[in-house]
Amino acid sequence: MSEPGPFGKVAILGLGLIGGSLALALRDVPGVAAIAGFDADPATLSQALARGIVDSGAMELEAVLRGADLVVIATPVGAMEGLLRRMAPGLAPHAIVTDCASTKGEVVRWAQDYLLGHVARFVPAHPIAGSEASGLEAARADLFRGTRTILCPRAEGDPLALAQVSRLWEHCGSRIVEMTPERHDAVFAAVSHLPQLLAYALMHTLARRPGASGLLEQGGAGFRDFTRLAGSHPVLWRDICLTNRTALLQELHNYQDELAAVTELLDAADGAALEQVFAKARQARERLR
Amino acid sequence: MSEPGPFGKVAILGLGLIGGSLALALRDVPGVAAIAGFDADPATLSQALARGIVDSGAMELEAVLRGADLVVIATPVGAMEGLLRRMAPGLAPHAIVTDCASTKGEVVRWAQDYLLGHVARFVPAHPIAGSEASGLEAARADLFRGTRTILCPRAEGDPLALAQVSRLWEHCGSRIVEMTPERHDAVFAAVSHLPQLLAYALMHTLARRPGASGLLEQGGAGFRDFTRLAGSHPVLWRDICLTNRTALLQELHNYQDELAAVTELLDAADGAALEQVFAKARQARERLR
Repeated sequence: MSEPGPFGKVAILGLGLIGGSLALALRDVPGVAAIAGFDADPATLSQALARGIVDSGAMELEAVLRGADLVVIATPVGAMEGLLRRMAPGLAPHAIVTDCASTKGEVVRWAQDYLLGHVARFVPAHPIAGSEASGLEAARADLFRGTRTILCPRAEGDPLALAQVSRLWEHCGSRIVEMTPERHDAVFAAVSHLPQLLAYALMHTLARRPGASGLLEQGGAGFRDFTRLAGSHPVLWRDICLTNRTALLQELHNYQDELAAVTELLDAADGAALEQVFAKARQARERLR
Repeated sequence: MSEPGPFGKVAILGLGLIGGSLALALRDVPGVAAIAGFDADPATLSQALARGIVDSGAMELEAVLRGADLVVIATPVGAMEGLLRRMAPGLAPHAIVTDCASTKGEVVRWAQDYLLGHVARFVPAHPIAGSEASGLEAARADLFRGTRTILCPRAEGDPLALAQVSRLWEHCGSRIVEMTPERHDAVFAAVSHLPQLLAYALMHTLARRPGASGLLEQGGAGFRDFTRLAGSHPVLWRDICLTNRTALLQELHNYQDELAAVTELLDAADGAALEQVFAKARQARERLR
């Protein structure tokens, strides 16, 4: 596998779990001369500098973008519109720009609206490596090992920029999968954003009851697995839900129909039909192993 | 911790994950002289004998019950009514009877209806050690280590039988929690049976789509955690749902209301309210760690 770069300077905007882990994964890569970090939180920035995760850091976007050959936006998706809007004037003419957002349609629209001539070298990306953990403390160099990264390249995009971003993620141990932004958002509404909302909804409704803590501590390993997603960062997920609202609403309606059907089977004590639903679900789940 | 017994003979009815693991955990306990196994499946029975998990085994209930000091019913809950109905004539007068069912109200009613004079020494129990694995192949001696076992003792029950069954599970590494059958069924409808149905419903609805396998393989670690329960045995769960139907229906309706409320917030793009729901859910989830 060839190395990413050569890049004189890589700018990483947002030093949370994803941005911090990417910086760690790019340390000591000969093709990467320097890593500059941007974060809105001064404590995160000084931690990243103190731990040597980035070579330089600033809360001023301009300083971090200046002369960067590669700019990776790794902030929560809610902060991306503002960054993309301010970014174009500070970008080097040859700079490649990529992102790590969990939704792609809105991000691509913002890039088209704001990146001006730089949009040809914008490569929309989504490394599938999030978890209920978040923040720089959780960052680690091997976070992306064995994962997939979805790229949603624009038809009119620069193929060299696409190749560079592909190499970047492959270097981190991630396998590249390409799809359109529309397909991406539909797929992840179903397999990521919907389960996330279902887990939040379960914890939210159970936690509001009188005696909730006594109730919740009776949950076994299955309950803890099922609700693990509910430990995820509320602001990140608010933004993901809002930027993938249409596809997610469709998945929610579909799931509500399914749940109503299952409830009806139980209400009718239709054991044979319930068993059939469970067996089909199990069959599909077992194929995933 | 004192050992269970002394029991000249322990009969375990149903040699699946739970029964098989219990048999393994009771091997080499000085207080247990012999373990007899009953299973409806001849292949399971001969495997249990060949692996030395039980000392004797039969598909005839009478032979297995004969002279047993302790009888543990570890079959799927759907098979328990039939067993309890046939059991009384074969029980030794002093025999303690306990079960491992995931629902307790129905089981207690069956015991009251069918165990006749033996019901005083019936101790309803639920070791919280199930998983998506099932069957004797998955059985292991340490399955119950670090778990809880719910006991739902009847007020009129024999305190010595209760003490013996408590010691049995404590010996296996499980901590005893007592509650009424009604409370048990309400609690586990919320933290076990509802999540199970939600996971089945998600896999069932996604698996039916055109291109389902391409969709499902995009799920990340969070999706695999969330849907792990859907790999559980359909017949076991059909029976659990049917024997805890009232409490589970109530939980389903409550959850559907919650989901409708969350959907409304998303439909209205009410980011602040969504964030609040997610934050409360996260707070409750973090207390579980």
